[in-house]
Amino acid sequence: MSPYEDHYSHDKAAETTTTTTTTIMEKEKICIIGSGNWGSAIATVVGRNARRLPFCHDEVRMWVFEEEVMLKPESKKAKLSDVINEQHENIKYLPGVKIPDNVRAVPDLVEAVTDATVLIFVLPHQFLPKLLPTIRANVNTTRCCGVSLIKGLDFDANTKLPVLISKSIEKVMGNQFRCGVLMGANVADEVARQRTCESTLACDFGSNSVNERIRQIFDEDHFRVSRITDVAGAEACGALKNVIALGAGFVDGIHMGGNTKAALLRIGLLEMAKFCSMFFQGVEKSTFLESCGVADLITTCYGGRNRRCAEAFAKRRGTVPATGVDAKSCIKLWSAIESELLNGQKLQGTLTAKEVYNLLNARKLLHEFPLMAAIYEISFEGKPINKIADGITESAAIPFSKL
Amino acid sequence: MSPYEDHYSHDKAAETTTTTTTTIMEKEKICIIGSGNWGSAIATVVGRNARRLPFCHDEVRMWVFEEEVMLKPESKKAKLSDVINEQHENIKYLPGVKIPDNVRAVPDLVEAVTDATVLIFVLPHQFLPKLLPTIRANVNTTRCCGVSLIKGLDFDANTKLPVLISKSIEKVMGNQFRCGVLMGANVADEVARQRTCESTLACDFGSNSVNERIRQIFDEDHFRVSRITDVAGAEACGALKNVIALGAGFVDGIHMGGNTKAALLRIGLLEMAKFCSMFFQGVEKSTFLESCGVADLITTCYGGRNRRCAEAFAKRRGTVPATGVDAKSCIKLWSAIESELLNGQKLQGTLTAKEVYNLLNARKLLHEFPLMAAIYEISFEGKPINKIADGITESAAIPFSKL
Repeated sequence: MSPYEDHYSHDKAAETTTTTTTTIMEKEKICIIGSGNWGSAIATVVGRNARRLPFCHDEVRMWVFEEEVMLKPESKKAKLSDVINEQHENIKYLPGVKIPDNVRAVPDLVEAVTDATVLIFVLPHQFLPKLLPTIRANVNTTRCCGVSLIKGLDFDANTKLPVLISKSIEKVMGNQFRCGVLMGANVADEVARQRTCESTLACDFGSNSVNERIRQIFDEDHFRVSRITDVAGAEACGALKNVIALGAGFVDGIHMGGNTKAALLRIGLLEMAKFCSMFFQGVEKSTFLESCGVADLITTCYGGRNRRCAEAFAKRRGTVPATGVDAKSCIKLWSAIESELLNGQKLQGTLTAKEVYNLLNARKLLHEFPLMAAIYEISFEGKPINKIADGITESAAIPFSKL
Repeated sequence: MSPYEDHYSHDKAAETTTTTTTTIMEKEKICIIGSGNWGSAIATVVGRNARRLPFCHDEVRMWVFEEEVMLKPESKKAKLSDVINEQHENIKYLPGVKIPDNVRAVPDLVEAVTDATVLIFVLPHQFLPKLLPTIRANVNTTRCCGVSLIKGLDFDANTKLPVLISKSIEKVMGNQFRCGVLMGANVADEVARQRTCESTLACDFGSNSVNERIRQIFDEDHFRVSRITDVAGAEACGALKNVIALGAGFVDGIHMGGNTKAALLRIGLLEMAKFCSMFFQGVEKSTFLESCGVADLITTCYGGRNRRCAEAFAKRRGTVPATGVDAKSCIKLWSAIESELLNGQKLQGTLTAKEVYNLLNARKLLHEFPLMAAIYEISFEGKPINKIADGITESAAIPFSKL
């Protein structure tokens, strides 16, 4: 029996007793680690649910990377955490949306995570190595579980193999700690504004009752969450879709049309599935038909920032490459586009495209992934934009069941 | 052994002999029945392939429903078939695109189909009952096979059950005649302009060599064709996607956002798959990941006429229904939109939505298809547009593998 199962048998017993203290002890203490755009948006959902669900403490703590923000009408500076706790709004990263007042912003990491039983990771993943040891020291890792909302994929510098961020978290947190992921077609602002959508929780916390509890912490009428066990497939989708979105941007940039774009999305989804099956264990084909698969891919290829930047890249480059297009000039163009369109943020898709390409190249597998290969070569080797078509036609005649 | 297999064993023998006449006898004689926008577009592909492929007669006949067209510069009338044969362009239905000159327009049906071995059906399906007996009388039905490009689904007036058009063709043509379908994300103008895309041929002509021959008749560099055996799944997708596209138009019309739209497409695809498995035999889940499935759905939900008309419907109706919204006023609004936006053509999606609803209602299965039900009720029963969300949220929490 897993420690979780053990715990929840106690829990069930607790529900039938009148020992209030026991019940309180067993309630979930939720801590959201991160308070950016997506972190603040999910805090609105989780905050409402925590208040509603009998097995959760009302208070949800949200760790805030403290910074000073400017209050507009008063024109004076204030601490972001104070503003969130007083105005119940993250005026910097999610302006205009009220965060439930049971969500408490906490700038001190130890205070935020102490005795938490559910950790929601939603921050740039380069923060993790610095934060995880402190988190580990302040929670009971045999009782606590994690859900990562971080979209990205690490690659091992030596083996070049992809490493799931959820796995890296588990590793630092210790053997008994398990980390699932929540991924889906979830543009943060739309979630925060309660536009109907869905998401996929991929987890295996060792017992159905725990899995279902965690699902309920995220699920509400406007944000429906389905649960699967394939963490690797769901998490890798969240990174790989950004590569495909670059291709979608190229197609848009030189007006190749709706047929081509739909074909690109489909072949992209198949290559994502193939990549996952090749490099991770326990990947299920059905994962790619969940919100984290096809739906997230669609939103990203029609509305995301990777698509937008790739469209700009294609427009500036045109269909025929200028002479002297080399890796250096490609990188320069991407940087220019990033700083113009993304306000200093970095593109995820180009980074992932490069890592994926290096891996496939080292293993002599590029021919199995003609679309991802074409996307990389257009992005960094001066291949003409319209050659994105080669990435589609090479796979298109093979039925899905044979891929 | 099927008659086809028998035929092609002869064929193989013929290839190794020097009897030229035998080889010519065995070559495929292709007839395209229909010459509208899609018919003319596919004629460009099939025409090029027939000339290139050694097992095809160069000449491709195209039956033309004769009509008079106006020649612009001369300002005089001419017969459409003459114009196609002289200018190699269908100036009425596919202006600006050259049709290969080995495609011969033939207004006489008997002349067009006589001794054809491959019939490509691409015309409004209400023409079929009148034409099929003549076709049957003039081909060798044990040697000839058909591929339908007709998108639509019939419903039996008594049982309300869906009937595949390919099956109706087979029935009239006789027991030995088999009809496959070609379906995919194929906007005709883009195919005609050789923009890269893909398509799905679903067929089972009794032998692999025949199946592969027919695939090659459609497949070319810019139009990649994969082959599957699930005719029912592929054909039904071509009709059902139009229902889902109405939902996409509603979401667009009241600006519900990208998350909601992606969720709608995904749930729509799942309901399409469920509908097909329930009402047809031999349906494979993988069909929905072919071009005829997810890719065609994407193009239709982002660019098609059903989406566009539904968007207009939603905009005019608004989020709150006016008092007195009943079936009659809905029908009136659809008619107005059709005549304004479609130049007299009829919407497919609303017809299919109604037939699907009637079937599901009669069998008490509406609860299994909340999205299709919501689309019908918004379209014809005055349900508020924003209630499309109910069609999404009811299914979204169930993982794909359990649907």
